[in-house]
Amino acid sequence: MAHNNKGVVKRVEWRINVGDGSSNQRVGHSCMWTMIVGLALKLYLFMKKAWDIGLNDPRKFIHCLKVGIALTCVSLFYYLKPLYDGVGGNAMWAVMTVIVVFENTAGATISKTINRIGGTSLAGFLAFGVNWVARRAGNEFEPLIAGVSLFLLASAATFSRFIPTIKARFDYGALIFILTFSLISISGYRVDELMNMARQRIFTIIIGTCMCIIVSLTICPIWAGQELHVLVTGNLDKLANSLQGCVTQYFSHSEASAVSDEECNKKLLGYKCVLSSKATEDVMANLARWEPAHGCFNFRHPWKQYLKIAATMRNCASCIDALIGCINSENKAPDQIKKNMRSISLRVVTNCSSLIRELAITMRNMTKSSKVDILIMEMNNATQELSDLLKSYPNLIDPSESHNAQDTQKEVAAKIEIPVMEIIQVVTLASLLIEIVARVKCIVKAVEELSDLAKFKAAKSKQHAVENKISPDQEKDEEAINKNQIV
Amino acid sequence: MAHNNKGVVKRVEWRINVGDGSSNQRVGHSCMWTMIVGLALKLYLFMKKAWDIGLNDPRKFIHCLKVGIALTCVSLFYYLKPLYDGVGGNAMWAVMTVIVVFENTAGATISKTINRIGGTSLAGFLAFGVNWVARRAGNEFEPLIAGVSLFLLASAATFSRFIPTIKARFDYGALIFILTFSLISISGYRVDELMNMARQRIFTIIIGTCMCIIVSLTICPIWAGQELHVLVTGNLDKLANSLQGCVTQYFSHSEASAVSDEECNKKLLGYKCVLSSKATEDVMANLARWEPAHGCFNFRHPWKQYLKIAATMRNCASCIDALIGCINSENKAPDQIKKNMRSISLRVVTNCSSLIRELAITMRNMTKSSKVDILIMEMNNATQELSDLLKSYPNLIDPSESHNAQDTQKEVAAKIEIPVMEIIQVVTLASLLIEIVARVKCIVKAVEELSDLAKFKAAKSKQHAVENKISPDQEKDEEAINKNQIV
Repeated sequence: MAHNNKGVVKRVEWRINVGDGSSNQRVGHSCMWTMIVGLALKLYLFMKKAWDIGLNDPRKFIHCLKVGIALTCVSLFYYLKPLYDGVGGNAMWAVMTVIVVFENTAGATISKTINRIGGTSLAGFLAFGVNWVARRAGNEFEPLIAGVSLFLLASAATFSRFIPTIKARFDYGALIFILTFSLISISGYRVDELMNMARQRIFTIIIGTCMCIIVSLTICPIWAGQELHVLVTGNLDKLANSLQGCVTQYFSHSEASAVSDEECNKKLLGYKCVLSSKATEDVMANLARWEPAHGCFNFRHPWKQYLKIAATMRNCASCIDALIGCINSENKAPDQIKKNMRSISLRVVTNCSSLIRELAITMRNMTKSSKVDILIMEMNNATQELSDLLKSYPNLIDPSESHNAQDTQKEVAAKIEIPVMEIIQVVTLASLLIEIVARVKCIVKAVEELSDLAKFKAAKSKQHAVENKISPDQEKDEEAINKNQIV
Repeated sequence: MAHNNKGVVKRVEWRINVGDGSSNQRVGHSCMWTMIVGLALKLYLFMKKAWDIGLNDPRKFIHCLKVGIALTCVSLFYYLKPLYDGVGGNAMWAVMTVIVVFENTAGATISKTINRIGGTSLAGFLAFGVNWVARRAGNEFEPLIAGVSLFLLASAATFSRFIPTIKARFDYGALIFILTFSLISISGYRVDELMNMARQRIFTIIIGTCMCIIVSLTICPIWAGQELHVLVTGNLDKLANSLQGCVTQYFSHSEASAVSDEECNKKLLGYKCVLSSKATEDVMANLARWEPAHGCFNFRHPWKQYLKIAATMRNCASCIDALIGCINSENKAPDQIKKNMRSISLRVVTNCSSLIRELAITMRNMTKSSKVDILIMEMNNATQELSDLLKSYPNLIDPSESHNAQDTQKEVAAKIEIPVMEIIQVVTLASLLIEIVARVKCIVKAVEELSDLAKFKAAKSKQHAVENKISPDQEKDEEAINKNQIV
């Protein structure tokens, strides 16, 4: 389609060239043509954009085909005489159900299905009850009772949609409840064969929902749970890349303006994805709990824990944001000081990133990792060394660079005179790195909770050997940092 | 209702007490009663929670009443004979429209109204066209053409819902398009008086949407734009409170553990609202553009600029998050150093908060403020002084406290020996404060853009006098910081 469009645009442009420099009428024509070409170009660009969206995620194309298939199948009830005679004009409800219920993810489809059937049934029973009472009350009171009950129940159901727990799970059900109750209680006043209508409606809705569930779950199903899993593990990698990227870049260039390198910048900005994906995660976690067991996830997989992990990741990402701000700040550190901090800072950051990546791998494989404890230990050691380096600041200037006594003396003089302004950047960087390490530990904790809740397989190598390596003191330190963090 | 429930619970508990220590049958009864009491208690708590939600925002109650009113009004079409004779059984569509279209905010209602009417009309025309072609093609091809066109158009419309611009504005319209096209093209095959049905359907939908618009816009309307405005300005205040709160608390207590004070903590955590309100803001901004002029907002009020302001606020909030992390970190600064930094840090933070609050006032009054420039100037001066203090660090120990030469000498010795670890917290704090100042300037810029776009009234006092006070050098500095920030 995009290709065809391009052809049209070219042909039109050729005509404009021919028309140039002729009579007024021709100028008018060319104006009109320019406008049409403009519109066609806009349309072409729009179509191209749409096409690219589909190419980036071909499952979107598949979803569209699935909707088409479900709809065509259900419309057979109309086209085929025997089937039509079975359900009659109410087949319309099956078509409507397919259109309204069919969603991109399996979870959303199932949630809407259950909500639609539940809401319809509940409202149906209630409406029959009210209708029965109204009929007993006599002709005068019948519309009154019907009207008042409609007013009260519709208001109450509308209000229930404001309650967060109901909003999250049964919003659509409440809507369908109001819809069905209104339709039945109102038509009850006019249509006499109400029972028959209600039975047929329930029947057609069930046909529609079954069609949706079958098509949604059998043809390339998209699981909300799987999506959430991929999103969170992918974000872990992005976090690791951002963290490592920004610090590495800071120490590899003397000029912070080199941060404008495009390829790297894209990687650096991964943490922004972490910060901005809360809404998607909430929706996915909400839908995932409707889904049956799929892939390596059980029915009651602890999806909520993914939200906790994501929250700890966002905490870490805000710190990275501040870190990048500090790196780009005005108070540049002198190269000499940066050089001294370089190796240990990079070690902290590399250990940190490896740990985050290992967490991502743990989650992907759903297997407890034997490496995590070693990586935490290495990260703690590196952080401790960073602290030690800061503590020994008056000796910060690298002794290996001083070849004679004169130079050393110069440096001793220099080290006392180093103004705080010059070290503010590296001190802030170190301080934020220590904070990030503390926050990464929160991520580790959240992932460990997930591994317990979801009963991840145990790691293959021996855990004990690793656990014994961690001294009790270190554990205490970790606890202190974690406590501090939680406050 | 809540009161009644409590009464029931009490009475039931009394019965259980009486039943204690009797025969087995009575124990069984008491078990059942305990269960019922438990359920009643759960129900009571749920109702209480729901009631509190309503009390916190009484407009939710009003919205429910509005839905009830609109629904009762529209159901009159059924109950009143003359009206019923006018539109017949199709009055059902009016009821359905009211239920589906009526939303909490005016913007959402209008958006859904326009989408519903637009989608229905477009699909109607297309369906008639296809139907006409199919009939011309003969009996054999009729279901084939109808089926293929349904498949293609439904797939295309479903795909269009993945395109962000369409998703944001016309998602519901696309759904209604598919719905109407399917219904008409399918019933077209069976129902002969299609034109009449379509006319009546459009007519009843218009009745339903009019009812919604009238009730939604006349009875205590809730404007999405107004909500967005209140949310963003409120978040500005929360940001200012958090910023001022955390730094003030840090300097007022020597122990950081005092941060656990509940009342203060709530204020401190205001910045988390800023971080987490992105989804709400996006939705509100999206709905606000459908709304007509209301209050002090014109039809084309620059709602998108609110999102930009909110983005700059979130940037600032992540820095505050890091700042709070640093304040709670392990490396506590000695009281003496904190004391020296106290007054100037508090000045920076107070100026910063005042500036943010002034921005909130500017937005609330929709009047350019004459104070903003002065406040920026003061904030810059304070930040400069903070930098100067850091620069003069070797003289950081307050000379006013040294009363004799001996003490001074001691202090001179002390100041050289101060380990970096001891100043890391205050240096990081200062560094983050400087970063926060730079980010606050981005908020100022975004609000100024809004004031230009929305044509805020000019301030009453003379602007020139203020503008002249700012030296060109200062402006340059600001520009440099801003540029740095944008990178």
